[in-house]
Amino acid sequence: MLSKNQSKLLRSLQRKKNRQEQGLFLVEGGKIVSELLESGWPLHSLYVSDDFAAAQAVALAGSGVPVTYCSSDELAAAGTLVSNRDAIAIVRMPGSTVPEISPGQWVLALDRVNDPGNLGTLLRIADWYGIRQLVCTTDTVDLYNPKVINASMGSFLRIAVTYLDLHDWLARLPAETEVLGAYLNGNSVHQLPGSLRGGVLLMGSEAHGVDAGLEPFVTRRITIPSFGGAESLNVAVATAVICDNLRRISS
Amino acid sequence: MLSKNQSKLLRSLQRKKNRQEQGLFLVEGGKIVSELLESGWPLHSLYVSDDFAAAQAVALAGSGVPVTYCSSDELAAAGTLVSNRDAIAIVRMPGSTVPEISPGQWVLALDRVNDPGNLGTLLRIADWYGIRQLVCTTDTVDLYNPKVINASMGSFLRIAVTYLDLHDWLARLPAETEVLGAYLNGNSVHQLPGSLRGGVLLMGSEAHGVDAGLEPFVTRRITIPSFGGAESLNVAVATAVICDNLRRISS
Repeated sequence: MLSKNQSKLLRSLQRKKNRQEQGLFLVEGGKIVSELLESGWPLHSLYVSDDFAAAQAVALAGSGVPVTYCSSDELAAAGTLVSNRDAIAIVRMPGSTVPEISPGQWVLALDRVNDPGNLGTLLRIADWYGIRQLVCTTDTVDLYNPKVINASMGSFLRIAVTYLDLHDWLARLPAETEVLGAYLNGNSVHQLPGSLRGGVLLMGSEAHGVDAGLEPFVTRRITIPSFGGAESLNVAVATAVICDNLRRISS
Repeated sequence: MLSKNQSKLLRSLQRKKNRQEQGLFLVEGGKIVSELLESGWPLHSLYVSDDFAAAQAVALAGSGVPVTYCSSDELAAAGTLVSNRDAIAIVRMPGSTVPEISPGQWVLALDRVNDPGNLGTLLRIADWYGIRQLVCTTDTVDLYNPKVINASMGSFLRIAVTYLDLHDWLARLPAETEVLGAYLNGNSVHQLPGSLRGGVLLMGSEAHGVDAGLEPFVTRRITIPSFGGAESLNVAVATAVICDNLRRISS
């Protein structure tokens, strides 16, 4: 059963301010908590149903953190997912580092993506396409928002996310770094040169596009050709299409 | 000002049963209602703010349907979008036809897509890639759900959607029709033959994939190559990536 203090802690972590003060965030759902237990991420505590505890007995015993057994109703009430009847983990935030770009790797850079579902989906897309690093402006939605973590379907475990001043970061990159910027009037992603081998993929918000102040750093303006009437694609959808083209030309 | 009966009608159309009984649905937001007025779709009635009425005076006068002037607060309260301060249209559902496949055209077929945001995003993607027809199983989420209409960003105006028995429909297609099925273990979309020139793109639900009963109709199993750790892509994201590859090889 959950104590009053535990309920209070779980609830408090739904707010960004509290997450930042405590350096903790929530991971909800049986499948993703199982994945988390395998991953070796630093945990704070675990809240699990009897069924989950039975299925994951070895992993729970090896986790080295306090485990609280709860009813499914308690779990559904304590978290943000009413469908979660299995497990919640309170997880320690990893430290943040400023990413360097390894040869042959792409870094995804997001300029003001505000929708938590979009950021979660973007993590999943980056993970699918083997992108390990994501940088974003400090006004991008919080990675540790439960909606982001849930939409990422576990991909947050495999992507390093850094909040920073994109202008400063781009200015400090080696001069030869390729920076692809997504625009509505760039060169077709279907005609990208096969010589592209990593760099930065810069995506703007749906509402505002790439900030004009970042444009001087863009080495190549790219665009997804349109064949119909829609004015734009969702930023996550557009990122997936571009990543698919980048992988196609280099594989 | 909204009458009691008008408020009641607007609210009632948030439910599928009422929409189907009345043959009416809601379109919300200034931008999309403006687009609707231009499109010539059959309307039932319009509910607009004074600002919207001033900006769209000519279109409103030409619409030939009753226009009710409301405060922005009334509009926000009457619809499903609290951010909508401008306009709501009550629109007549178009008749449904069973689509035939024209040479060189792709039809998007959806097997049990349940999330309204996904269906709306899929309409926007189909529209971007010039796909004019979408067919879906009768247990797919309702096209006229306000969340679908809102997520489609106006693309519902340009795509004919038909709910039908996919098995029956696929069985009646001409024998030479290409039916691409999206699977996790098909041939790479990066190696599609350039000779593909239209047919059916069949996408399953995220949870269940393409129904096994539909597999005999699939002429080509396709897959999006993965380069990382994510187990799957969202169905809308996957559809966009496949459509992009189909357009790339034929343009």
